[in-house]
Amino acid sequence: MADGTNRKITLKSRPSGYPTPTDFEMIEEPIPQPGEGEVLVQAIWLSLDPYMRGRIGEGASMAGPLPLGEVMIGGVVGRIVKSRNPSFSAGEIVEGNLGWQEYATSNGTDLRRVDASLGPLSTALSVLGMTGMTAYFGFLDVCEPKPGDVVVVSAASGAVGQVVGQIAKIAGCYVVGTAGSQDKIDYIVKELGFDAGINYKTENIGEAIAAVCPNGIDVYFDNVGGPVTDAVMENLALRARIAICGQISQYNLSEPEMGPRNIRMLNIRQAKMEGFLVFQFANRHDEGRQRIAQWIREGKLKYREDIVEGIENAPTAFIGMLRGENFGKMLIKISDE
Amino acid sequence: MADGTNRKITLKSRPSGYPTPTDFEMIEEPIPQPGEGEVLVQAIWLSLDPYMRGRIGEGASMAGPLPLGEVMIGGVVGRIVKSRNPSFSAGEIVEGNLGWQEYATSNGTDLRRVDASLGPLSTALSVLGMTGMTAYFGFLDVCEPKPGDVVVVSAASGAVGQVVGQIAKIAGCYVVGTAGSQDKIDYIVKELGFDAGINYKTENIGEAIAAVCPNGIDVYFDNVGGPVTDAVMENLALRARIAICGQISQYNLSEPEMGPRNIRMLNIRQAKMEGFLVFQFANRHDEGRQRIAQWIREGKLKYREDIVEGIENAPTAFIGMLRGENFGKMLIKISDE
Repeated sequence: MADGTNRKITLKSRPSGYPTPTDFEMIEEPIPQPGEGEVLVQAIWLSLDPYMRGRIGEGASMAGPLPLGEVMIGGVVGRIVKSRNPSFSAGEIVEGNLGWQEYATSNGTDLRRVDASLGPLSTALSVLGMTGMTAYFGFLDVCEPKPGDVVVVSAASGAVGQVVGQIAKIAGCYVVGTAGSQDKIDYIVKELGFDAGINYKTENIGEAIAAVCPNGIDVYFDNVGGPVTDAVMENLALRARIAICGQISQYNLSEPEMGPRNIRMLNIRQAKMEGFLVFQFANRHDEGRQRIAQWIREGKLKYREDIVEGIENAPTAFIGMLRGENFGKMLIKISDE
Repeated sequence: MADGTNRKITLKSRPSGYPTPTDFEMIEEPIPQPGEGEVLVQAIWLSLDPYMRGRIGEGASMAGPLPLGEVMIGGVVGRIVKSRNPSFSAGEIVEGNLGWQEYATSNGTDLRRVDASLGPLSTALSVLGMTGMTAYFGFLDVCEPKPGDVVVVSAASGAVGQVVGQIAKIAGCYVVGTAGSQDKIDYIVKELGFDAGINYKTENIGEAIAAVCPNGIDVYFDNVGGPVTDAVMENLALRARIAICGQISQYNLSEPEMGPRNIRMLNIRQAKMEGFLVFQFANRHDEGRQRIAQWIREGKLKYREDIVEGIENAPTAFIGMLRGENFGKMLIKISDE
């Protein structure tokens, strides 16, 4: 704040296919001043997430498309540096959707105080934040796992997948993860305790899934869609439950992709496929946060963050994440804690 | 029984694509005699249903494939003509999976007595039988409709679809049906009281659905799959519920069909798609039967049967049904009541 400049990343053009760095623009402007009832937040951590791709494209998305020229949306953990809102004091750590920028004002209604006793501040965006809540509620509430269930998680080393797989182990399930490199497979199997891992880039995914799930798949937590999902569909157990958390394989196609029609498998296996958003469970996020924090304290749940420094590097980090180049939850460190 | 001959239709060859009459063979043999504990049933009505296509093909199905040379499976209403089982008496009317044949023996465990006071005997296979139960439980339990919901039913004049649409009207929903001829559209709209009908063969299904469901589709009861389902997927309302009852558009393809990947829409709309089989609700069929019988008595629910006479005509009637040439529930009249 010394020089009084706020750097922010805006959407310059609407990508078709994978975004490129020139789809974004970094703008410098004076740090905004909080109005009456507002606070000024200095960002410390910025969360980068696949859902953002949906908001900058043309098509249907969780919300309307972000207008060109607007600050990119994103969850931030930051410190209140000025407060004109009686509910907040300077120095408090908060989390909110403040976007890809170093400073932001807020009237406070969308800010959540971060409980630093639960974990490092970054975890308020990762395992104890939206990512962890997505895993917790998407798996436990949408998939309704039972001990002994065979669970497949796609993008298993990713921000959500790694948490889902570990909760599934805690819940007594047999857990298979798919990922796109041997390092990631080693991580989920050797470090996180998954029962098996499949490298979808080097293995025949259909044969590999059938081999490790000979009695079929009871639960599929899907982050990717495409051929991995096709392979799972052909190997569903009776009354299987599929949670659609994301479809990242489909977000960056310039033309819609065709795939085999396999809805029939839901019929034959009397199976359920359900899309969900973490906000559905907003009134229960505290429950999820407390449980995950406890599992971390007990050593039952680990997490991995992929940290890049500097707001100016957010676009390339985001593009890399869409290509699967990240390893764990993608975060931008914007300023020191 | 006068001449002592039983005529039965067996599976001669496993069809690829649409079945042809030569995939079936009619065999004449002496009427079987019931053993100790068995009954002999003379068939009156035979039910023809799309699920049978799954059982005669190579691929995954609700059960294993029917072996070549075996009698075609199928639900039958018939009269007990001989009984060596103390639980049944000659003259009683029963329903069971007795297959495409004029006479069958049974040990009685899979037979259900037909309550003739509820409706004509044929209805034990149609609106008060498996068809009606599929509609009742698939719609009310899987789709969980609420008054005011926008409901789309595919194959809306068919055996299941016509019942689903009328129950949806009883439940206070706005109901749109898709069908493949103007006669069928007129029937569901003018006779059954659907709010709108779309002829998927002559209309642009995507535009037509968007036009009659401008606020999106809350419930989709799917019998067909393929392009009709694609169009619905693009027009789902938030928290939509989709019941997969059948996928008849996919049953007779010699090569699997490709379609647009649209699972992402479930995510965006936080929607659920669930496959089901009527047998899941077997312990509640009496409930469904009583309710539907009452709605028929009250004039709130009509039904239409498409009747062909003679077991020898079952193959061509079955093939026609798979092509959508039937109009209402397809039944073979095998003998006089």
